[in-house]
Amino acid sequence: MSPRPGALDGIRVLDFSRVFAGPDSTQILGDFGADVIKVEEPTRGDDARYFGATQDELAAFGGISPSFLAFNRNKLSLALDLGCEAGRSVARRIAANVDVVLNNFRPGAMAKWGLGYDDLKALNPRLVYATFYAYGAEGPLADFGANDLALQAHSGLMSITGDADRPPVRCGTAAIDLHASLGLVSAISLALFHRERTGVGQEVDTSLLLSSAHLMNYFYADYWISGNTHGRMGTANHLSVPNQAFPASDGMVIIIAPNDEMWLRCARALDAAALDRPEFLHSSARLSRRHEVVAALSAVTSRLSCAEIVARLGAVKVNVAKVNDIGEAADHPQLAAVGGVVSYERHGKRIKAVGSPFRMAATPGSVRRPAPEIGEHTDEVLAQFGLSEAEIADYRQGGAFGRIAGAPREPS
Amino acid sequence: MSPRPGALDGIRVLDFSRVFAGPDSTQILGDFGADVIKVEEPTRGDDARYFGATQDELAAFGGISPSFLAFNRNKLSLALDLGCEAGRSVARRIAANVDVVLNNFRPGAMAKWGLGYDDLKALNPRLVYATFYAYGAEGPLADFGANDLALQAHSGLMSITGDADRPPVRCGTAAIDLHASLGLVSAISLALFHRERTGVGQEVDTSLLLSSAHLMNYFYADYWISGNTHGRMGTANHLSVPNQAFPASDGMVIIIAPNDEMWLRCARALDAAALDRPEFLHSSARLSRRHEVVAALSAVTSRLSCAEIVARLGAVKVNVAKVNDIGEAADHPQLAAVGGVVSYERHGKRIKAVGSPFRMAATPGSVRRPAPEIGEHTDEVLAQFGLSEAEIADYRQGGAFGRIAGAPREPS
Repeated sequence: MSPRPGALDGIRVLDFSRVFAGPDSTQILGDFGADVIKVEEPTRGDDARYFGATQDELAAFGGISPSFLAFNRNKLSLALDLGCEAGRSVARRIAANVDVVLNNFRPGAMAKWGLGYDDLKALNPRLVYATFYAYGAEGPLADFGANDLALQAHSGLMSITGDADRPPVRCGTAAIDLHASLGLVSAISLALFHRERTGVGQEVDTSLLLSSAHLMNYFYADYWISGNTHGRMGTANHLSVPNQAFPASDGMVIIIAPNDEMWLRCARALDAAALDRPEFLHSSARLSRRHEVVAALSAVTSRLSCAEIVARLGAVKVNVAKVNDIGEAADHPQLAAVGGVVSYERHGKRIKAVGSPFRMAATPGSVRRPAPEIGEHTDEVLAQFGLSEAEIADYRQGGAFGRIAGAPREPS
Repeated sequence: MSPRPGALDGIRVLDFSRVFAGPDSTQILGDFGADVIKVEEPTRGDDARYFGATQDELAAFGGISPSFLAFNRNKLSLALDLGCEAGRSVARRIAANVDVVLNNFRPGAMAKWGLGYDDLKALNPRLVYATFYAYGAEGPLADFGANDLALQAHSGLMSITGDADRPPVRCGTAAIDLHASLGLVSAISLALFHRERTGVGQEVDTSLLLSSAHLMNYFYADYWISGNTHGRMGTANHLSVPNQAFPASDGMVIIIAPNDEMWLRCARALDAAALDRPEFLHSSARLSRRHEVVAALSAVTSRLSCAEIVARLGAVKVNVAKVNDIGEAADHPQLAAVGGVVSYERHGKRIKAVGSPFRMAATPGSVRRPAPEIGEHTDEVLAQFGLSEAEIADYRQGGAFGRIAGAPREPS
């Protein structure tokens, strides 16, 4: 429990989104004070509950995947079957009284359910209505499904990731998907700011496509202006030398010395006799003698430990970093020192997770709730929004919170 | 010129940041209506003006790099030498009257210049003061320099990017840096929202480190919960099969069919005889027979064109995408269809660039100005903030807008 106010205190978010980007964006809104209601399909809930974990691992974690835990703290779970009118009716009643609605269904799905922007705007003109698409709401690929990997391929990111003599590889994390999360947070926050000044809500959206294009921004600009299409260069790039990974005696380090003064400091800090050579002095010469420079530097670095290289180059302000594995990165004390690690109890177990991706001094992020079970807060949310016990019983009979045994299923 | 209002109309941003993340974040604020004043060192300006372009290319583009063009539309450029007191004094006078200040100097630099949060807050309590750090303001690595590649190494992203039988490679684009841009937009927008409700500004920050940790979120969570540290798998991952790139007759496609129904649709759409086999039917079987499944599917896909595979699998709602190069991606009509491409005149040349990474229906982004020359708007900005001609002359004499020939240089 944080005693400090949150920037979004009192803001209520109804979140229909699933998997990564959408849930991550509402987790951030929740970290900063919003009350987030996560709508989940009553039987299985969010698919991310089972992502990336074997059956044995799921059992060990209390039936929930690390990915779900990573993206769903600070939320109430409302189990709602949108496949029946009773469920959709409850959704509309709640949406009429929240500040933000978010979904990542295929284009047209929310409108088909009477939950489109026009439907909800009529009930709630102050509503900020956010949608996360694959390729967007219109255009030739609007109806195409996609995920992070699909956009790594489509966007050209894959074409510039990997070794020159091998086929492309993926960026190891779902960068495009998670980048879209901050696109959603930005759009929703700006819309709330605009609403605070004008009194009116609006529709905002982003997509895997726009997220990928933003990450590829300067490559597309270069192509449009100069016709350049870059290729794969391992850990190196076309801008400068050295600017890549080098072998150490006990691992790898990256070393970046783009200008001549930095190169000189780098050369002298590591091995002046081997590296401080006139033919390596100028950045253009280092580019044209790339293989020589890399070979000479590699010969020096491979005799030193990562720690030694980092200490020597850090001291002379040359950009250097150890190539960490996941565990070394997660446990590095710097992350905790800047508040990048949060921890909380869930069913008696201590959960560690990455904190918010930015900090606000006067209204800091905080963890107020662990990730929920499916439908854990259904009754609490319904009461909060003023549904009477009789109404709730009717909706329940109609299948709103999950199919009643023996009840007929509506055609979807 | 857009006739529509912007969400940030009337908001003034004083931007001391350089290179990618900071300038990109203020470009987005500018797209949505903010007046952005870019402070540039009078002689060379932002280093990004020369990034990634040869001398010949720079000459061909009017002395400015595609990267700079990509991140600096909708800005006024104010040439200011922060190395002298006259320059810093002008900076303080303007900062006293803006809504947002952004910088990405090393920790302590702004405070040393009398431009720290405490200095400016005293002049302007409503100020939102944003800083973009490398590793953050405190902790053991606070004084370490870094860039995108350094954080790809430090964060563990590099360790999971590449082929299993080769050393790590980089994610081809500066994903961590550009992701931080949206962290800044989010933090600034939330702080403006909070200010609108309470009347008070605050300090916000993010860092390459927090940005990287957010992108690696679910890997760290998995490690902290289960001890898993994943490795490199080319374009594949450990979650499901098929979920990677496959060869086509004229390129590569990615195919993702994580569940059994999708796999069956995929198998039947491509070649039922070769793929619809009982031993491939279950997701766990496909995981344990990964090499067999990939080989069988590759044999099928390599006889078909990319277009054919995309058409067949798209029709049965299996996630599929062509591995595009930069040009194919930038010019794909889908991006323009969703407003992802903007274009404007600059010195008589037409510039094409990636649009905003999210959309706001009532307050859409727009291009109101091309990327500026160094100091192009110095006089305009000074007049806007009420500096008299006599004051401007004094500041000029003091070197505020660039060193006067023959004048002594202050020690820095």
